[in-house]
Amino acid sequence: MSNFGVTDLRLVNPYDVAFREARSAVGASAVMESARVFDTVAEAVAGCSLVVGTSGGDRREMTLPLYRLETGARLMREQAGPAALLFGSEKSGLTNDDLSHCQWVMQIPTRAEHRSMNLGQSVAVCLYELIRDEQMAAQPVQGKKPAEAVLVEELRERLAEALRLSGYYDHSATSGSERRLRELIHRMNLGEKDAVVWLGILRQILWKLNQG
Amino acid sequence: MSNFGVTDLRLVNPYDVAFREARSAVGASAVMESARVFDTVAEAVAGCSLVVGTSGGDRREMTLPLYRLETGARLMREQAGPAALLFGSEKSGLTNDDLSHCQWVMQIPTRAEHRSMNLGQSVAVCLYELIRDEQMAAQPVQGKKPAEAVLVEELRERLAEALRLSGYYDHSATSGSERRLRELIHRMNLGEKDAVVWLGILRQILWKLNQG
Repeated sequence: MSNFGVTDLRLVNPYDVAFREARSAVGASAVMESARVFDTVAEAVAGCSLVVGTSGGDRREMTLPLYRLETGARLMREQAGPAALLFGSEKSGLTNDDLSHCQWVMQIPTRAEHRSMNLGQSVAVCLYELIRDEQMAAQPVQGKKPAEAVLVEELRERLAEALRLSGYYDHSATSGSERRLRELIHRMNLGEKDAVVWLGILRQILWKLNQG
Repeated sequence: MSNFGVTDLRLVNPYDVAFREARSAVGASAVMESARVFDTVAEAVAGCSLVVGTSGGDRREMTLPLYRLETGARLMREQAGPAALLFGSEKSGLTNDDLSHCQWVMQIPTRAEHRSMNLGQSVAVCLYELIRDEQMAAQPVQGKKPAEAVLVEELRERLAEALRLSGYYDHSATSGSERRLRELIHRMNLGEKDAVVWLGILRQILWKLNQG
């Protein structure tokens, strides 16, 4: 919850020992320290304009709409006002009584043979889907800075010189080799730093070739 | 891993006691039972054509491209051939040496104040992003069957009758009320089952109104 910026944890009849230990643990995040305990689901979700249940099972008997997480998270984001996401116990999930507080239910798209999920992992996956960003999906956070064309050209020239000095062209007829070499270097998809490193290597080789 | 259909778990120098216990636990999934242990990252990723690292930290010193999970997962899906997703220990993450085996690194978009994530939750979120389905995002898995128009019309007629019998129209001038009632009922966004329930309620009320 804390990882994804969701801070309002409300527990209904938690197992006391585990909850007290987790809350008082060194480094317990602000989420645990401010968590509130309620006796009933009704009290816990009071004040929420949307209550969404979660389910791993088949729930064929269920009368509520059941959405895949991708759909459900979109519907939640479109909703104004405070929304609650309701998780059942790891062992048995939400009861039909719990579900009666929900407008609809969402389900993580696991494989059919292994639907039951660890509770903490379910929460993490649901909250991640709620905050994931379609817009950002296409953009690198911190990519390598690509080498500029002038650097690529210098590399190509040095490489051509090294090839000529080493006698490479003696064995292969290479008209149009300037373009071929440029394409060869472009396919390396060089970052600026690596281009500088390669240039240093070529200069050293050229120096040695010219010595001989 | 098992939830999301990823079955090839490879561990590098795992903490022996924990691993042996988890593997032999009753109900340990096929993933744990078939997990393999290696001495080095190099041996573990041998045979993979793509190795992707994961990082929670800032990693400003890192020279590898760093993508948000949304971007990284898309790049992984586009890749042919076996791909490895490399996770570090929960405490310290991947070392620079580990990272040198990776083509690039991806990062779960947590909030900046709380980047460090539980290992199991990180794995779940990454694998979920790999299998999530943009196409399915728009579709309900199992929505309620909407009430057909003929049912909505019958409801409207019964409701109009109940309003007339109860004297509702005596107090409100309602030209165009047929359309208004239909819109009122459409806004209920009724499923077929609920429409039948409402029809039963109205019939009962009508029966009582006609008695009087």
